[in-house]
Amino acid sequence: MNGFDDNLNLLKDKLPLVTSASGATVNGKTFGATFEVIAGPCSVESEDSVVECALAVKKAGATMLRGGAFKPRTSPYAFQGLKKVGLDYLVKAGRLVGLPTVSEIMSVRDIDAFADVDVLQIGARDMHNYELLREVGRSNKPVLLKRGFSSTIEEWLSSAEYILSEGNENVILCERGVRNYAAVGKGILDFAAVDAVKRVTGLPVIVDPSHVSPSGKGVGSLALAAAAVGADGVMIETHISPCTALSDAEHQITPSELETIVNSTKTLLGALGRQTADKR
Amino acid sequence: MNGFDDNLNLLKDKLPLVTSASGATVNGKTFGATFEVIAGPCSVESEDSVVECALAVKKAGATMLRGGAFKPRTSPYAFQGLKKVGLDYLVKAGRLVGLPTVSEIMSVRDIDAFADVDVLQIGARDMHNYELLREVGRSNKPVLLKRGFSSTIEEWLSSAEYILSEGNENVILCERGVRNYAAVGKGILDFAAVDAVKRVTGLPVIVDPSHVSPSGKGVGSLALAAAAVGADGVMIETHISPCTALSDAEHQITPSELETIVNSTKTLLGALGRQTADKR
Amino acid sequence: MNGFDDNLNLLKDKLPLVTSASGATVNGKTFGATFEVIAGPCSVESEDSVVECALAVKKAGATMLRGGAFKPRTSPYAFQGLKKVGLDYLVKAGRLVGLPTVSEIMSVRDIDAFADVDVLQIGARDMHNYELLREVGRSNKPVLLKRGFSSTIEEWLSSAEYILSEGNENVILCERGVRNYAAVGKGILDFAAVDAVKRVTGLPVIVDPSHVSPSGKGVGSLALAAAAVGADGVMIETHISPCTALSDAEHQITPSELETIVNSTKTLLGALGRQTADKR
Amino acid sequence: MNGFDDNLNLLKDKLPLVTSASGATVNGKTFGATFEVIAGPCSVESEDSVVECALAVKKAGATMLRGGAFKPRTSPYAFQGLKKVGLDYLVKAGRLVGLPTVSEIMSVRDIDAFADVDVLQIGARDMHNYELLREVGRSNKPVLLKRGFSSTIEEWLSSAEYILSEGNENVILCERGVRNYAAVGKGILDFAAVDAVKRVTGLPVIVDPSHVSPSGKGVGSLALAAAAVGADGVMIETHISPCTALSDAEHQITPSELETIVNSTKTLLGALGRQTADKR
Repeated sequence: MNGFDDNLNLLKDKLPLVTSASGATVNGKTFGATFEVIAGPCSVESEDSVVECALAVKKAGATMLRGGAFKPRTSPYAFQGLKKVGLDYLVKAGRLVGLPTVSEIMSVRDIDAFADVDVLQIGARDMHNYELLREVGRSNKPVLLKRGFSSTIEEWLSSAEYILSEGNENVILCERGVRNYAAVGKGILDFAAVDAVKRVTGLPVIVDPSHVSPSGKGVGSLALAAAAVGADGVMIETHISPCTALSDAEHQITPSELETIVNSTKTLLGALGRQTADKR
Repeated sequence: MNGFDDNLNLLKDKLPLVTSASGATVNGKTFGATFEVIAGPCSVESEDSVVECALAVKKAGATMLRGGAFKPRTSPYAFQGLKKVGLDYLVKAGRLVGLPTVSEIMSVRDIDAFADVDVLQIGARDMHNYELLREVGRSNKPVLLKRGFSSTIEEWLSSAEYILSEGNENVILCERGVRNYAAVGKGILDFAAVDAVKRVTGLPVIVDPSHVSPSGKGVGSLALAAAAVGADGVMIETHISPCTALSDAEHQITPSELETIVNSTKTLLGALGRQTADKR
Repeated sequence: MNGFDDNLNLLKDKLPLVTSASGATVNGKTFGATFEVIAGPCSVESEDSVVECALAVKKAGATMLRGGAFKPRTSPYAFQGLKKVGLDYLVKAGRLVGLPTVSEIMSVRDIDAFADVDVLQIGARDMHNYELLREVGRSNKPVLLKRGFSSTIEEWLSSAEYILSEGNENVILCERGVRNYAAVGKGILDFAAVDAVKRVTGLPVIVDPSHVSPSGKGVGSLALAAAAVGADGVMIETHISPCTALSDAEHQITPSELETIVNSTKTLLGALGRQTADKR
Repeated sequence: MNGFDDNLNLLKDKLPLVTSASGATVNGKTFGATFEVIAGPCSVESEDSVVECALAVKKAGATMLRGGAFKPRTSPYAFQGLKKVGLDYLVKAGRLVGLPTVSEIMSVRDIDAFADVDVLQIGARDMHNYELLREVGRSNKPVLLKRGFSSTIEEWLSSAEYILSEGNENVILCERGVRNYAAVGKGILDFAAVDAVKRVTGLPVIVDPSHVSPSGKGVGSLALAAAAVGADGVMIETHISPCTALSDAEHQITPSELETIVNSTKTLLGALGRQTADKR
């Protein structure tokens, strides 16, 4: 039989830390106490643009600022990000507007460059990069762990276990879609996985609706579904001018579109009585 | 490039009827005017049990009664359903409680047996059964068309086009999960597909959260997500006593669980202002 | 755990007829006694063209003639085949050159039209069409059963069990590729499945390398691999002039290319000592 | 449209180095001049056992010795390999029997530990680990690059391009199966990909039949298919006593089974006239 066995007794043997985890904090606050909206550009492109975007997403209701500086790109000839300089811009923008920052780390060698970033993101390509998982496990920063392109839930939770087993208690899981022949775009968001993970762990789980939306059109509907299914937040790539973006131009949305989404999720969660820290 | 191209001009050439369709009616009422809840047992097992279940799901808030009489089973030795007698029981139960009925048809030869059933269901296994699609297209009954196990959106809509092209205007699409190595259970519900289909056609789309929930635990969360993403309803397998069911015992829920789900979706949709006929 | 459990004791309980089957015959000869090469056009397009193709594939070394008359097409507006007339042309061509014929049947209603066709093909789309499986099971003709787009081995063998359970002992299985995000074309040929099925059943298994070869370039290499892995034959779509074909123009090969393939497989099988009736 | 576009003009723009590559050498010899058989244990377990295995696989006809020392394991609590000590044992065994060695590297930090290993293996989990790809690209050792669990051919070749773009000309590609719901085991070997890659690049491509064979039973048939389809070799996990292995016990085969496989592939390739350096 295919699938995930959510038998808690078996899971406790295999995943003792994940199954006994209880939440995560970012800068001293409980992550997901209210529905998190992590927004910002796919890539940090310049100081001005990330500051402008930070101001706009803050105004739109974002609770954290994202921005890629070290970019995992399929081709070695594609834009690889501004790297350390990009992180500096992101951190500056985050502090200016008062939002914690999250950015993807791709190498154990870069850990020092992330000293001022608030949350370390492990991308889908690196979910099985155990050396990197251990390294971020030894840092004192919260880690946002995306699910791999075709990883099972048990593999995903096992990667979280790697991080927790190094002493880092602050892991945030992020569902971003698994690859499928029949998908609209690059993958299908697995909402049943979000639900199952929430049932068997105390770790927060967010949803990234951007990467499965080839044209960006589905981002809003999928964000609402994420809120409805019980996710603790969403991460949405947002750009002042999506069509000119240096990477992933096609699925980024505008701050104005983000604001509409934030308001809808607030309405939905308010109706369901879920905006308190004890959400479920 | 993988995926679904939702360019409406191209789609209009390929799928002229689907892209110009405008809703569906069941027994004279607009399907989805309010969020539909189709519930009932996986299989009709006896007259008493289907009547009992019909009363219970009606009380729980269901708007239509489902029940399998001709059952597509992987093994020729598994319970194949009560067939014509099962349909009779289902119709009787539906009329008793005042709910329209829906049941799966598997063969062109059975069309007469469905004379008193209100909606013909085409299962995932038969989405590519073009002879059957044409046959139900020539009937005067609404058709509920499930998506195939690994069918693309364009294939799904093309199967709807087969039905429409025979003159039947009343097609309801049903997303039930596509197969994936990494799935929790038998598939992953593709909510982006629901959203995309709603954008490019006027056909109603519902979600079946039962078949992707190996233990039934995820049904409620996924039904809420379906409501949030803009689906016109859900189809949920419901049984008075799931653990004794003759088929699919593992994922069926009780009428009491159904009632909780119905109430949650009503709350959610009310908050989003979506319970009117002009939902979007 | 994912996958196919080839525990024979368990399989014998679930699939008593499949696991005890011993070969298949076509027109009184053991199918696969020597490596079978089933060739011919995707669609029968005219009497002249199918006769010309039959002569050419016979000369190239084909052992059976294929040709589609009832065509399963995703779109209702695509060429649907010549139907009964197409079957007549195919049968005429087969008799003229002395090759048994195989053609796809899509509906229980068409069974009489296939009276003179030697082998009934069930396509991938119909592997779960149980009514059709039963119908061809009640006929006295050998059945070539393709694997579904995303069907497991157990599902495939269960569909064969449906046919056998109606009294038809002559089932030939055909692997044609399963859908996958990462595939070169429409699917990935599952050679491990061919090997596993050969181990646990006595049914012949052939491979269709055409449908996974988007440009036809891979057909020859994959046919050799099929011979090497132990398949009993191949089915290859062949057209006098592929670029003018009415359907599947892109992957059909020429009779001259077919001849090269036939000769290579003969060399390979000869070296492995596999051309006798007791092949393995 | 799904799939891989093998249009060479387009590929030359995207993958200039991969499309102009011409073979790889290991210790001064052309890799694949004769069909390569890379064999050895999943994990190096002790000095004695790897020496014993090296002697046995050499005798069976292996041309290179493999053995895992740094093991990528889903669970942090599973056996992680003997690490540097394991590499020492492997190198010692390889030198003793006169076989070049290959072992998996998982971290940029371990590069020095591989000084005496002849070929660096990048595992499926690390195909998208661009920092590691660049690092091995800067080394002077040949790199064996496995395809990711669900990676497209273009992604796979792009990862090879990362290595080549750092100046390392010696890349060997390894197909190991892509994940699929319907697979017999953990994946389906994509022989069409082997064929397509051979057509559009000059890089050698081998096949790993072990990881898709849940019980080891299919390894021999799949190795023959690999030879038939045009692969330059196979990598087969081999253990003196598979059932006592510390990892992947279920699919490892014995040296005696390996010998049978080697002999069959030699027979097959001899018949096809493929054992010369200019194989195709």
